[in-house]
Amino acid sequence: MPKPLIALDWGTTRARAFLISEAGAVLERRIADRGIQSVPAGGYPDAFAELAGDFRQAAPDAAIVLAGMVGSRNGWIEARYVPCPASPAEIAAAAIKVELDAQTTATILPGLSCDDGAFDVMRGEETLIVGLGLSDGIACLPGTHSKWAEIRQGRITRFASFMTGEIYGLLRNDSILARLAEAPSESDTAEGAARGRAAAGRAGGLLNTAFAARTEVLAGRMAGGAVGPYISALLVGQEIAGAEALFGKGQTIHLVADGALAESYGAGLQARGHTVQIVSPEAAFVAGIGRLAAGLPA
Amino acid sequence: MPKPLIALDWGTTRARAFLISEAGAVLERRIADRGIQSVPAGGYPDAFAELAGDFRQAAPDAAIVLAGMVGSRNGWIEARYVPCPASPAEIAAAAIKVELDAQTTATILPGLSCDDGAFDVMRGEETLIVGLGLSDGIACLPGTHSKWAEIRQGRITRFASFMTGEIYGLLRNDSILARLAEAPSESDTAEGAARGRAAAGRAGGLLNTAFAARTEVLAGRMAGGAVGPYISALLVGQEIAGAEALFGKGQTIHLVADGALAESYGAGLQARGHTVQIVSPEAAFVAGIGRLAAGLPA
Repeated sequence: MPKPLIALDWGTTRARAFLISEAGAVLERRIADRGIQSVPAGGYPDAFAELAGDFRQAAPDAAIVLAGMVGSRNGWIEARYVPCPASPAEIAAAAIKVELDAQTTATILPGLSCDDGAFDVMRGEETLIVGLGLSDGIACLPGTHSKWAEIRQGRITRFASFMTGEIYGLLRNDSILARLAEAPSESDTAEGAARGRAAAGRAGGLLNTAFAARTEVLAGRMAGGAVGPYISALLVGQEIAGAEALFGKGQTIHLVADGALAESYGAGLQARGHTVQIVSPEAAFVAGIGRLAAGLPA
Repeated sequence: MPKPLIALDWGTTRARAFLISEAGAVLERRIADRGIQSVPAGGYPDAFAELAGDFRQAAPDAAIVLAGMVGSRNGWIEARYVPCPASPAEIAAAAIKVELDAQTTATILPGLSCDDGAFDVMRGEETLIVGLGLSDGIACLPGTHSKWAEIRQGRITRFASFMTGEIYGLLRNDSILARLAEAPSESDTAEGAARGRAAAGRAGGLLNTAFAARTEVLAGRMAGGAVGPYISALLVGQEIAGAEALFGKGQTIHLVADGALAESYGAGLQARGHTVQIVSPEAAFVAGIGRLAAGLPA
């Protein structure tokens, strides 16, 4: 019997709280800079009250499910990684209970691990992947540490992380390339992105092609405003190439992104011949936490 | 008729000055944190006197030749890039004269440019490459922005830069990997380097394999001390793979390096099946500037 759901995507720097109806509709949403790094030891019940106390008043019988870094070693309590391959039922079965107050428990979802030669982990993204509802397919979740996952027969069989967003920030803001970078005009954005996508296919690799952002500007062949878009498209192209090498080519990619990331990854994927299905992170999270909540042990 | 030579490798942050005998022996050497970024406009004659004034007293008839960033737009005076392919004679012919005082001129060597799809430049490394005295071969000059060059029939035909050293610093000191990195023990260095070299051959590419430095430590499978050596060997391996894609495999690589760089690049090159000839940067510079000085127009 479904009940309303209070669901939190509780990450390192931010928390997103949702009140979701029995039918799966988002009734309320909130985003706050109240990630686990801002919560002191023992402070989770208070932080939860701050984030979603009014949702509890609105829906006193709601189930409460928390996903993301809240279940990490540095969070409320550690919910261990479930090794891949993992089904939604196996993920739900590894959830653990915490006490919000004497009358009320919340459920913390685990993360996933994968040992595909190198060890890898995710925490939070597995809920979005489950939300895609795929029986078979490839999911791409761009971000600071992008995740790609393979789903077979409804189980997440393996996945890989890419430091794309973080390395973009380092190159754009802290490297020698930063000195030449300027705020892009609209044509700079288009030109830089086209050049970066082309550079991702060049033979020398990332360490070589990143440097060209400098030399092309010094030679007067590229505008300073194109440096950021060039680096971004180059890194996205390198990430996609790496993911193709791991997960294969020529498949539909389920891209969990919105805004600028949806645009840049969508363009990068299409340029390399992929068919793309775009789902917003909120839609994927709400669907995924609903599926996992339905499978939780009583 | 050879004369003694006062030669400066005058870079952005550092300057190296040499007094070289007619026979090519280094009689005196000096290194100072007196790169061009520390020299004010108009301050070059004074900076030169500070760096090598006593060399002039010791050898009043010496030729004076300056290489490196001193010839850049931000240096003493711009000596334009010579486009590849370029012979030592063509490089020497593009040198320009500056006045140290009313009686004395010095010669500033140009840099090299290459337009092999993407535009690339070097300034200073060309002198070391000339110093290798190769008729045909591949040179590797590791550093903040490593250079690889191809030499055919005595001319530098093309080259490519790699941001290896700079990206190492960003990942090791400023990325999420820095938090887990510790000072390496001897066994950490060996283990991290072996793992990094292996990771450079994995399918996911740099953005994926860099992240494994984090997850392998979190999983307790790699020591924090191995993080730095892992990143270093991974990047060196990626640089070599990129250079192989550009310049071909199975050749002798003339490695211009000493100390830790000679060790890490030597190991990385040998692991990928290359034969390696190591030359120290000083030996390459002294030989190169001697050859170029001999070819200067009167």
